Amino acid sequence: MSGRFVWTNGELAAAGARIDPRDRGFSLGDGLFETLRVRDGEILRLKSHLSRLREGAKTIGLPIPWSDEELAGALEATLAANGLSSAAARLTVSRGVPERRGLLPDAGASPTLVVTADPFDGYPARFYERGMAAVTSGMPRNERSPLANVKSLSYLENVLARREAAGADESLLLNTRGDLACASAANIFLVFGEKLVTPDLPSGALPGTVRAAVLKFGLAVEERPVRPEELEHAREAFLTSALLGAAPLVAVDGRPIGSGEPGPISRELSAVL
Amino acid sequence: MSGRFVWTNGELAAAGARIDPRDRGFSLGDGLFETLRVRDGEILRLKSHLSRLREGAKTIGLPIPWSDEELAGALEATLAANGLSSAAARLTVSRGVPERRGLLPDAGASPTLVVTADPFDGYPARFYERGMAAVTSGMPRNERSPLANVKSLSYLENVLARREAAGADESLLLNTRGDLACASAANIFLVFGEKLVTPDLPSGALPGTVRAAVLKFGLAVEERPVRPEELEHAREAFLTSALLGAAPLVAVDGRPIGSGEPGPISRELSAVL
Repeated sequence: MSGRFVWTNGELAAAGARIDPRDRGFSLGDGLFETLRVRDGEILRLKSHLSRLREGAKTIGLPIPWSDEELAGALEATLAANGLSSAAARLTVSRGVPERRGLLPDAGASPTLVVTADPFDGYPARFYERGMAAVTSGMPRNERSPLANVKSLSYLENVLARREAAGADESLLLNTRGDLACASAANIFLVFGEKLVTPDLPSGALPGTVRAAVLKFGLAVEERPVRPEELEHAREAFLTSALLGAAPLVAVDGRPIGSGEPGPISRELSAVL
Repeated sequence: MSGRFVWTNGELAAAGARIDPRDRGFSLGDGLFETLRVRDGEILRLKSHLSRLREGAKTIGLPIPWSDEELAGALEATLAANGLSSAAARLTVSRGVPERRGLLPDAGASPTLVVTADPFDGYPARFYERGMAAVTSGMPRNERSPLANVKSLSYLENVLARREAAGADESLLLNTRGDLACASAANIFLVFGEKLVTPDLPSGALPGTVRAAVLKFGLAVEERPVRPEELEHAREAFLTSALLGAAPLVAVDGRPIGSGEPGPISRELSAVL
């Protein structure tokens, strides 16, 4: 299932690609990643991903010594080596191998860059045709952590949230105030009349690349705190992520949203994003 | 500074030890670790560390296929290979290399075990003689996350908290209610009269092995929510961790605790733990 060739610090290697177990990405979750969709040879929203990566790097104080062109080149080279034109690609930048043990980053450490690409032709058609079902996670997301808005390698909370989904397709995360933040690997939008509503970044939403595309799409969208009870009154809802694009969300905790079927705005956006 | 020999999945290798960059420990911070102090050839509180590792594994649903004897054997072998009798050793268990991409763990994945050992003769003497200074982090710790009580590989918040310490020795973390939780890599105790007080686990304290040793030491200790303002009235305070043992905390945010000098209980505990 996974692409054989992995790009690690400037070298493309088949199966044997390896990193040092002392790398702070492995030992402390100290780094960032981006998951990018590649469709018909095109890396979707590449610029948006690279810009989010650099924002995250500022937040955690991680120097990224590569230009956008170099990062794009590593992605293209990895896709080519694996012979993939439809893929889930991933850029990982960690703080690298430290000279000293302990929590404090070395001033002089060299970050590690890993690029992988796996065959990916999109999520199951039923996500779009029938719509997705989610459960609400019991684990609150800390919207006051700077990491709430960063796609960092310290991602275990999202893993645990996803495990809670069990039979459903996704888990919705509430923040410590009980407002909606996002799903374990997606952003959420609600539709009221013709207006879209999505949790704002201070609510703990990850600044998703497809979320940004929806904001710029031309529809009226309000970013604000969103109560989970609002799902009961929404006409429709949908989830967005780089790999998902936009997919209707038709049920939460077993209760239907709107008619319980994909609504027209979700359908339109899922067709174009 | 670091031990050359690293134990990875049953093999001891010199400098070239490597793990797969697809390991979920690296890609998602999906795993656990323990840092153990080795002094005069003895691994301190080994049983307590292994028991905490297994508790954490339950919380995150990570199978640990090794017996305590096997884990101890890997530690001993790594220490021996590096010729170390005083060391900071580290056990890392990650969820290993998945068969499929995505957040959900594979049912059948094999966890990765990494053991490292670095020369370590204790923290600077001034930590014990003059006492440590801390600052209060501006980043709240999410006491309602199951990870607040787990030493997981998703440790970037602790890294960011430690960076805030700047000129000080440690950062204190408050939880989302504003109560004291712990330091970035230590637990905290306050002394009132002859009684010790320490944040309880629901406050977001990590269940530290030296913290546990203090609880069992024979002194009166209360585990409860602790307000940061209580530091002003404490007679003394101290920090505990596997590598630190117990060390006096004499100032927070530039304000002295008690007399501003190491107190008698802190001194006594730092001598024996």
